[in-house]
Amino acid sequence: MITRLSNYFLRTLREDPSDAEVTSHRLLVRAGYIRRQAPGVFAWLPLGLRVKEKIERIVREEMNNAGAHEVHFPALLPREPFEITGRWEEYGEGLFRLKDRKGSDMLLAPTHEEAFTLLVKDLYNSYKDLPLSLYQIQDKYRDEARPRAGLLRGREFTMKDAYSFDYTDAGLDKSYQAQRDAYERIFTRLGLEYVIVKADAGAMGGSKSEEFLHPTPIGEDTFVRSAGGYAANVEAFTTLAPAPRSFEKLTPAEVLPTPDTATIQTLVDSANTNHPRPDGRLWTAADTLKNVVLALRYPDGTRELVVVGLPGDREVDQKRAEAAFAPAEVEPANEDDFKANPGLVKGYIGPWSPAGPVLGTESTTGIRYLIDPRVSEGSGWITGANDHGHHVFGLVAGRDFTADGTVEAAEVLAGDPAPDGSGPVELARGMEIGHVFQLGRKYAEALGLKVLDENGKLVTVTMGSYGIGVTRILAIIAELNNDENGLIWPKTVAPFDVHVVATGRDAAVFEAAETVAAALEAAGKDVLFDDRPKVSPGVKFGDAELIGVPTIVIAGRGVAEGVVEIWDRRTGERTPVAISEVVEALS
Amino acid sequence: MITRLSNYFLRTLREDPSDAEVTSHRLLVRAGYIRRQAPGVFAWLPLGLRVKEKIERIVREEMNNAGAHEVHFPALLPREPFEITGRWEEYGEGLFRLKDRKGSDMLLAPTHEEAFTLLVKDLYNSYKDLPLSLYQIQDKYRDEARPRAGLLRGREFTMKDAYSFDYTDAGLDKSYQAQRDAYERIFTRLGLEYVIVKADAGAMGGSKSEEFLHPTPIGEDTFVRSAGGYAANVEAFTTLAPAPRSFEKLTPAEVLPTPDTATIQTLVDSANTNHPRPDGRLWTAADTLKNVVLALRYPDGTRELVVVGLPGDREVDQKRAEAAFAPAEVEPANEDDFKANPGLVKGYIGPWSPAGPVLGTESTTGIRYLIDPRVSEGSGWITGANDHGHHVFGLVAGRDFTADGTVEAAEVLAGDPAPDGSGPVELARGMEIGHVFQLGRKYAEALGLKVLDENGKLVTVTMGSYGIGVTRILAIIAELNNDENGLIWPKTVAPFDVHVVATGRDAAVFEAAETVAAALEAAGKDVLFDDRPKVSPGVKFGDAELIGVPTIVIAGRGVAEGVVEIWDRRTGERTPVAISEVVEALS
Repeated sequence: MITRLSNYFLRTLREDPSDAEVTSHRLLVRAGYIRRQAPGVFAWLPLGLRVKEKIERIVREEMNNAGAHEVHFPALLPREPFEITGRWEEYGEGLFRLKDRKGSDMLLAPTHEEAFTLLVKDLYNSYKDLPLSLYQIQDKYRDEARPRAGLLRGREFTMKDAYSFDYTDAGLDKSYQAQRDAYERIFTRLGLEYVIVKADAGAMGGSKSEEFLHPTPIGEDTFVRSAGGYAANVEAFTTLAPAPRSFEKLTPAEVLPTPDTATIQTLVDSANTNHPRPDGRLWTAADTLKNVVLALRYPDGTRELVVVGLPGDREVDQKRAEAAFAPAEVEPANEDDFKANPGLVKGYIGPWSPAGPVLGTESTTGIRYLIDPRVSEGSGWITGANDHGHHVFGLVAGRDFTADGTVEAAEVLAGDPAPDGSGPVELARGMEIGHVFQLGRKYAEALGLKVLDENGKLVTVTMGSYGIGVTRILAIIAELNNDENGLIWPKTVAPFDVHVVATGRDAAVFEAAETVAAALEAAGKDVLFDDRPKVSPGVKFGDAELIGVPTIVIAGRGVAEGVVEIWDRRTGERTPVAISEVVEALS
Repeated sequence: MITRLSNYFLRTLREDPSDAEVTSHRLLVRAGYIRRQAPGVFAWLPLGLRVKEKIERIVREEMNNAGAHEVHFPALLPREPFEITGRWEEYGEGLFRLKDRKGSDMLLAPTHEEAFTLLVKDLYNSYKDLPLSLYQIQDKYRDEARPRAGLLRGREFTMKDAYSFDYTDAGLDKSYQAQRDAYERIFTRLGLEYVIVKADAGAMGGSKSEEFLHPTPIGEDTFVRSAGGYAANVEAFTTLAPAPRSFEKLTPAEVLPTPDTATIQTLVDSANTNHPRPDGRLWTAADTLKNVVLALRYPDGTRELVVVGLPGDREVDQKRAEAAFAPAEVEPANEDDFKANPGLVKGYIGPWSPAGPVLGTESTTGIRYLIDPRVSEGSGWITGANDHGHHVFGLVAGRDFTADGTVEAAEVLAGDPAPDGSGPVELARGMEIGHVFQLGRKYAEALGLKVLDENGKLVTVTMGSYGIGVTRILAIIAELNNDENGLIWPKTVAPFDVHVVATGRDAAVFEAAETVAAALEAAGKDVLFDDRPKVSPGVKFGDAELIGVPTIVIAGRGVAEGVVEIWDRRTGERTPVAISEVVEALS
């Protein structure tokens, strides 16, 4: 059935919505695809629903090809299973919680690990039932703190989430690979270039994790890659630690006065002026050990101070720190923190003071001290002496101080060596379009999902979880495919295959357009037909550009000569074609 | 692609779920269609999802045929629009309410009148944009007090809700009729016999409303119908009031002692013994005026007493009373109510006492008095005299007392006259399968949805709302189509068209079954193939009966002679058919 604009629920808008901060949001609202209901919550209008369904169809086909079975869980779930796995609390304010009329705690699920685990536990009990992969395409909820980017990060969003169940690690690897392969096919079909990067598995308690990122300068995520093939998001990058060095021949540490050197730059300048290096080279920021006091805020409301020691030429990276300290949120220490801990002398903090250890394993402050892997055994540093206006020179890790552990919280810089030895990394930006994850046995263990193996022994199941944000993908495609006049959909997900426009008031033109539209429909194309009788060609062309169907057929004056124009929305090219040849030209 | 049971996410269960109170719930869980997550909240397993999608496809096709446009709203909505229409409060405990991280009130929508009204207000502004019908197939939420009947009344459920927008009453009638016609087509395609009954429009503030009921003795709803074509649910039935009669010749009311007559039966007996009718006939319960004290509990928490006067041969019907007093809930008055109102003498309540009016327009109690339409002007009654052990005889409505109004709260009895004059009604039971509703201007007025008419004048839009519970329909079909061995799906919604079973261990049998399955798939059938190698024929047949695909093909020993059996699940009939002729036999 031809869809006629004269009778279609659509109103394009001339003005950008006032709350739209990103292009996809702006254009999807203006072109009549979506409409905001609340912050981060959208209604889908007919055009939007069509694109969403096309994306879902591709995802569904590839999930089925990968041997996954489709199910559908409710969004509304009881608290108990989330309590058992700890996510009821860990999710913090991001979880929509509610009570039913009987006072029972419930939630709107952000993902469904618990529910899938319990379903398989309910129904299956033998290794013969495995491997098993299940998926759903379903609406999820996360109470985002700043739901400002339209569909890119909504509070209600559609996701394809899949879960695999195996009883051996090798089985999990295989199930994981099948999903990973399916993702590659999905993104290829969607026309979305991707990079697969190592991701941080920490927060979910899993063992292996990769993200599919679409590389683009407008991406919100930073990732690193080497020419030799290494790729990781910044959270997952690991530092190549220098080998331990002997400190037998190193001179003892020495406390020196360094007045007014509370910043790294003033310290380096002061050191070069007043305490030059014995070998004649200049001190640089990389010779200093900077100690940053962070406050960790845990989901249960508790707050802990930690000190991170890292080379003075690097800052703490917020994302890496949050990944390292998950599920805690990380913020800088405040004035009250310093007042409460006089052992930390602001601007002059170090692990050691003439009076003895301040931080680390024999700490007098009781505050955990974690160091960057570059602060390796035998390395010597200029660092604070916990005495106002004084630093200690030649303080050697492993000789003069020992930390409570290492932490990957320092920023990654272009040129840092990839951990797999594949050379220096560069930094790039991307948008997350998918995530595959080996959960391992965390959920199965917490919820008691075991099966009998070949020997009749109960073994805990090992799981994977695999996610694609359907509505997010739609927004990303819109974000990447547009120009100043509107959207330009890739053919695989366009709401219609062809947009036929009848211009002017000549009945013969409308009849010819009708003929073309009918012929295209008969040839299996989805056709949007702008048959509005009293709308000017300018408005019709503007709407066609805004809506972004990739192929537009214009019936106008040329009809008298049996000719229409095919307008390629992406290139802007217009080609005259005989009416009788339109179907062939577009097949 | 053939679906193989050897590799399908399915586990049939031998035991009924402990919480299943109805057949559909029991069988859908046992046959692996659904799985409970919380009271009234279910997950859909692969088989269930298939049936659900088939129902949705039929609904969608008929909605599109009726010219409605599909959209999709979020379940999570802000409070404000529901506050404006009053539903935030009126919905009472049935509404799932929650707060987001910023403390804003939100809800999980039970229906979407407000959201659709605001969407059309946002985008449309002229009579030229109308008529418009929109629909969605979407998950809704109601916090049912007793979610015990599985999918029949869940707390999360899928619904097709449609809304029509017109600017004239005639337009609304037409849009309403289009939806009503679509419903008739939908239920016919689903194989669901239906009766269209007049329904109560009160609570939603609308003007006209009809329910589609499936007539069945196991139905939870009562409706009435006459041989002459009248049909209504009990809430919507209206009483034919007798014409007013002159009371000029009636004798004055007389208070008589009637000790120990606090019930209608004792009163009638006492009257016949001690105060016989002057005309020699016997007094009956229908000669008495019973006054029932009810407590109305409003959504805002307030509570009001009312007295309902009705002929003594009828009880108050809870559903009719709740419809009449909506949105209040109705409960009997309690002892404290009587203590607080000494003017109401329990067992002897009447509108009048020797001291003057107790109830009605000149009430001394301040309590509203509402009478059944049968208590018409000029009718005389035996009723309480508000004096313990006394009744008043010959108390005439309109002469001795006047009520504050009439109310349709008395039970309907078989034989009552239909209000349209089409003869006496009978009572029958049914299950609600759909609801069409003329909302009128209530929502448009509250939310300011107006358009410019032909004369450039702003007019308020008039709306209809139309609902089918998709998951409820699925449960009803299951409830009506089963036997002691399991489900028996109608062909239009069965999860598969054919269930092919290979029995025994003979490889040739499995190959023949595979051939048949492939040929059926090639002929466009959805095939479920039980290819499990080590499962006994008995278990396979049991599963086939439980799952309920209407046509089963059994490959067994007959394969040696080139024959399989076609088993009709509904009739139980098994017919041998040559393997080469199976496709033709089933087409």
